[in-house]
Amino acid sequence: MSLSTLATIFAPLSGLVALAFVAILFWWISRQDPGSPQMREIASYIQEGANAFLRREFMTIAPFVLVLAGLLWVAMGKWQIAFGFVMGAVFSMVAVYVGMNAAVRANVRTTQAARSSPAKALTVAFRGGGVMGLGIVALNLLGITILFILFGITPENAPEAVHLLVGFGFGASLSSLFAQLGGGIYTKAADVGADLVGKVEVGIPEDDPRNAAVIADLVGDNVGDCAGRGADLFESGSDNLIATMIVGTVFMAQYGSYGWLAVLFPLISRAIGALGAILGIMAVKGSEKRSPIAAVNIGLAVTGVFSLVSFWVLGVVIMKSYSIFWSLALGLGAAIVVSLIIQYYTGIKQRPVNEIAKASRSGSALNIMAGFSYGLESVGLPILTIGAVTLAAYYIGGGWIHGVFALTAATLGITEMKGIIMASDAFGPIADNAGGIAEMAGLGAEVRRAGDALDAAGNITKAITKGYGMACALMTSVVVTFAYLVEAAKHTGVNLTNLQDIPIIITDPLNIVAMMLGAALPFVFSALTIRAVGVTAYQVVEEVRRQFREIPGLLEGKAKPEYARCVDITTRNALRHMVVPTLVSIITPVIVGFTLGIWALTAYLIAVKIVGALLATFMFNAGGAWDNAKKYIEDGSYGGKGSEAHRAAVTGDTFGDPLKDTAGPSLHILIKLQDIIAITLLPLFVTYGLK
Amino acid sequence: MSLSTLATIFAPLSGLVALAFVAILFWWISRQDPGSPQMREIASYIQEGANAFLRREFMTIAPFVLVLAGLLWVAMGKWQIAFGFVMGAVFSMVAVYVGMNAAVRANVRTTQAARSSPAKALTVAFRGGGVMGLGIVALNLLGITILFILFGITPENAPEAVHLLVGFGFGASLSSLFAQLGGGIYTKAADVGADLVGKVEVGIPEDDPRNAAVIADLVGDNVGDCAGRGADLFESGSDNLIATMIVGTVFMAQYGSYGWLAVLFPLISRAIGALGAILGIMAVKGSEKRSPIAAVNIGLAVTGVFSLVSFWVLGVVIMKSYSIFWSLALGLGAAIVVSLIIQYYTGIKQRPVNEIAKASRSGSALNIMAGFSYGLESVGLPILTIGAVTLAAYYIGGGWIHGVFALTAATLGITEMKGIIMASDAFGPIADNAGGIAEMAGLGAEVRRAGDALDAAGNITKAITKGYGMACALMTSVVVTFAYLVEAAKHTGVNLTNLQDIPIIITDPLNIVAMMLGAALPFVFSALTIRAVGVTAYQVVEEVRRQFREIPGLLEGKAKPEYARCVDITTRNALRHMVVPTLVSIITPVIVGFTLGIWALTAYLIAVKIVGALLATFMFNAGGAWDNAKKYIEDGSYGGKGSEAHRAAVTGDTFGDPLKDTAGPSLHILIKLQDIIAITLLPLFVTYGLK
Repeated sequence: MSLSTLATIFAPLSGLVALAFVAILFWWISRQDPGSPQMREIASYIQEGANAFLRREFMTIAPFVLVLAGLLWVAMGKWQIAFGFVMGAVFSMVAVYVGMNAAVRANVRTTQAARSSPAKALTVAFRGGGVMGLGIVALNLLGITILFILFGITPENAPEAVHLLVGFGFGASLSSLFAQLGGGIYTKAADVGADLVGKVEVGIPEDDPRNAAVIADLVGDNVGDCAGRGADLFESGSDNLIATMIVGTVFMAQYGSYGWLAVLFPLISRAIGALGAILGIMAVKGSEKRSPIAAVNIGLAVTGVFSLVSFWVLGVVIMKSYSIFWSLALGLGAAIVVSLIIQYYTGIKQRPVNEIAKASRSGSALNIMAGFSYGLESVGLPILTIGAVTLAAYYIGGGWIHGVFALTAATLGITEMKGIIMASDAFGPIADNAGGIAEMAGLGAEVRRAGDALDAAGNITKAITKGYGMACALMTSVVVTFAYLVEAAKHTGVNLTNLQDIPIIITDPLNIVAMMLGAALPFVFSALTIRAVGVTAYQVVEEVRRQFREIPGLLEGKAKPEYARCVDITTRNALRHMVVPTLVSIITPVIVGFTLGIWALTAYLIAVKIVGALLATFMFNAGGAWDNAKKYIEDGSYGGKGSEAHRAAVTGDTFGDPLKDTAGPSLHILIKLQDIIAITLLPLFVTYGLK
Repeated sequence: MSLSTLATIFAPLSGLVALAFVAILFWWISRQDPGSPQMREIASYIQEGANAFLRREFMTIAPFVLVLAGLLWVAMGKWQIAFGFVMGAVFSMVAVYVGMNAAVRANVRTTQAARSSPAKALTVAFRGGGVMGLGIVALNLLGITILFILFGITPENAPEAVHLLVGFGFGASLSSLFAQLGGGIYTKAADVGADLVGKVEVGIPEDDPRNAAVIADLVGDNVGDCAGRGADLFESGSDNLIATMIVGTVFMAQYGSYGWLAVLFPLISRAIGALGAILGIMAVKGSEKRSPIAAVNIGLAVTGVFSLVSFWVLGVVIMKSYSIFWSLALGLGAAIVVSLIIQYYTGIKQRPVNEIAKASRSGSALNIMAGFSYGLESVGLPILTIGAVTLAAYYIGGGWIHGVFALTAATLGITEMKGIIMASDAFGPIADNAGGIAEMAGLGAEVRRAGDALDAAGNITKAITKGYGMACALMTSVVVTFAYLVEAAKHTGVNLTNLQDIPIIITDPLNIVAMMLGAALPFVFSALTIRAVGVTAYQVVEEVRRQFREIPGLLEGKAKPEYARCVDITTRNALRHMVVPTLVSIITPVIVGFTLGIWALTAYLIAVKIVGALLATFMFNAGGAWDNAKKYIEDGSYGGKGSEAHRAAVTGDTFGDPLKDTAGPSLHILIKLQDIIAITLLPLFVTYGLK
């Protein structure tokens, strides 16, 4: 008992420490030199555009959240779920708002730092990302711990009461999906629109101040790549915590006097993760002697080793279970292996990217064919790895049903690095922005070279994050399905410990049809998001063309474009188009649950997650490979910049943009949102469903 | 007993009648006027190229077939399976060879007929396709009936002996996959290669005789679109028959004195289909008063009505079961609805195609984004339709397990139109070829206009076939999985009549991992086939460029290109690249069967088919929509031919080619091959598997 009391103190404490660190990092960044008045002016445009977008986004989300909260309260008859729902949505938005505001301060300060010391620039950019990384982990942990205490969850009532936490997960998932979709559509529409007119039609460089969409493009880096990804990781963090706690209730008996730890275990593991992230972020320091990526790797290594050691203490020393330690370690290992595979498929020095670049010599169609093909191929090895780890953890844990707990532990192992990974991901858009500000402010070649080195490091960390994100999303969503199963068993009296008692036979046509629907959803959902980018980008293109046509002297650099109009067009369209995909993804599981029943819904959920994860991986890797094939040519191969091959590669890169930065990341959220909706509404399906 | 004796006579008799009709059609086509010496010369190039390809393809397949037949004999200890395997492969190749040879005779005769009467041209082209359509149905039916008699299958031994037929299905599937892959890679590599240099770089029209790849392109229409699709439908025909007979054994008791009919029922239904196809093909006659598509529709309507009436007789009058009639009718209805949906997504006058054309104004990237997005979206409604029909048939049949028999009947209902649908599909490449020959022979505008009308009709029938093909493939493969389940139950003593006794729980991590692997296979498989097209097309591009560079006077039309070299390059590469995807698709289910066990293999099979069908539908529809968006612009919208929008649309069309004509159709075969391998090797998995 004393151990578990310790745990309930350790978790919120660690969350508060992390939060304090967020404040310190924010303060440290604000203190850095923001550069010349011109730089500050550009930065203020970005900051205003990004904040205006987030505010309008939150205003769009708010009524959905309130209406749904009301509906939840009425339908479920429990204030806790409605309250948790609002809190999940609000915490998610706060984490994203704070994180992004650090990013839009760090960008110009990174540019300024690069003028004197590239090493310093790295430190500024990475700590800027650190605010998002740490903020997410902290608010996740604190939010759930607060509810845990507020709802008075005890070892006695845990099997029923833990379900009350799902509201938080639902709220976080919903606002994350909005944020990822809105931000994702924004960033890629602005990016594609700016490039199509700027680079392709007019022939001016990226981030050229004459391009009317350039500020929208830089804003996009922040609201999409930074805020969107933050929301994504906030969501998978909450879902993971809540789902593993629900699964933990089944295993309370198994761990005897430590039983309560089966439920608290996820909180403890995440609390360790928060401390590991702090250590890792502080370990990343730029140096004249190291390349930026080497510096980032030190941070990753510090967090990794710290996690492994803590896993040993938690699993072997405290919970007296080697299988838990091995599962946690396996999860950590899977994250690393998947990241390496992704690096092969998207790395600029690897065969796939080189083959895509080579194919570009015969035009856009062959470039796209090659990238498309490698993207499809790239799903094979990661899914094999995750499959192998899943089975290994399951059998190490002792097969059904004990192995499920081990599987949960493996998922916690994967997600342990979330803080530092998110920091190194948010570092990417900050470096991007810093380069853009340098370009717009007309700073010297030296500064831009420093920026390029940061950018290259950013590309590698982005690739790592995406592989990592996929592994997290798929494993998390498998565990959330088990949590769903646990809840379904409670409502129907099915004995979970006997696998054969679970009435979900694969060959039941009802389940086959449910799987067909589940497998189709990610296709339709991706279609809607990609089209949204295409349509919005088209509007941006028209506006930039119009400005070049109608503003005299713009192309010669004698007049200034109207940046704000592009920002406004992108904002309006992104917000408009994020609604339908979100509604589709809420309504579908509800219809399946009410018509095909709670067991077929399980089949549906499994199909959604497998197909969603595969499609997302394909999109990430194809998009990343096209991007780097273009860079490979720009580095001087196959005719370099301006050649036919380069033009073809730009087409592939442009097409890949909404895949890798809008549809792909949104799919990660989609697959977990489906589960969390199912868990939340399960009691309604049982009572009012057809079957 | 007398009824079932009648059935065993009716099936082979109908097959023989169909075969006789194939001979008559072939003879009729050969008697038509093959035109001027120049036309005959061009036609002879195509004929030689196509036959040479098929011969080399068969030579490549032969050793695989022999080695596998030997292995099957040794491993399974039953000569019947090895014998059936060889026979299935040989019958498939014969059907394809005869059908394609009719097509390469019909093409030039269609051109010649168009010079005097467009109506006559339609009749020639359609009957040319009829040879393939009817030949497949006839050889399917005869092959399986011969084995049925040879193996001495009786009501007494049926539950065990019907399994012997699976060898035929395996042989047919294997050689079909080779044929579809080889032909599919050939046709699209030649097409893309010819277009990339001809239309895009040099700016000469399609099918221009100065293009060195033009003959290879015309050969490709025959070996890919015609022979490949024929092999596909031959395979789904055999699998469907064999699987429904296996499922039928479970229901022998249910139909009392008609019990044996449960097994013979598929043969009877297919025999009716053969007669319906003959009537339909003969009903298609060109007329000056009707558009070509109206003439084709009459044929489809004749077969449809005949099928419906026969279903009434078979279901209600003979088998005394309304549920069988309704299931057959539902299947027929599903085929029609899915075709209509596909026509919406790919039709030239519909919104998706117009939106894609509109997006082309901003370049290739937005064109591809739009087509990609509509392609993804297009999987939703067809899968909903198939899901609804599956559940309807299942519940009309009485739920588990009787509903499974109704589901089988629905599949037979869908596949009933196979003969006439294949005829109208093969009609497409013949019309294509006829147009190409007219262009190369420099015939007048009048002839080409007639050709264009045929071509437009061909595009519609192709779209219909693809939707139809997807519905067939998915439903068939669901039934084959049930056949697998029947066999698995026999080997393990599981009582099939009680759904809960089947030990395949969806939430078992073993099954989840099996589904992950199954879902990933279609991605990896498509990757290999699309890359094969890209790589081969690149070789063709290089060769055509070389000839324009090195042959003096070629561009001015004073010298002739070396057609044979392009034919040879395409042939060699297509054959080389068809091997790896085939091996991957054979080995994967074998590994899963031996390591994860026969029940997890079921989960794997279901995932393969759902994801495979979705990916194939996406590829078909995206490819078709890009194709028609290009045609829409060529018809004068958004600047017409030669505009920026047109150039962008050509990129989309080129990228879509290998999707819709190589990877998509191959996926249809893949999903059934997986099942048939699983059924064939099931006894080995049971005996030697890990679990």
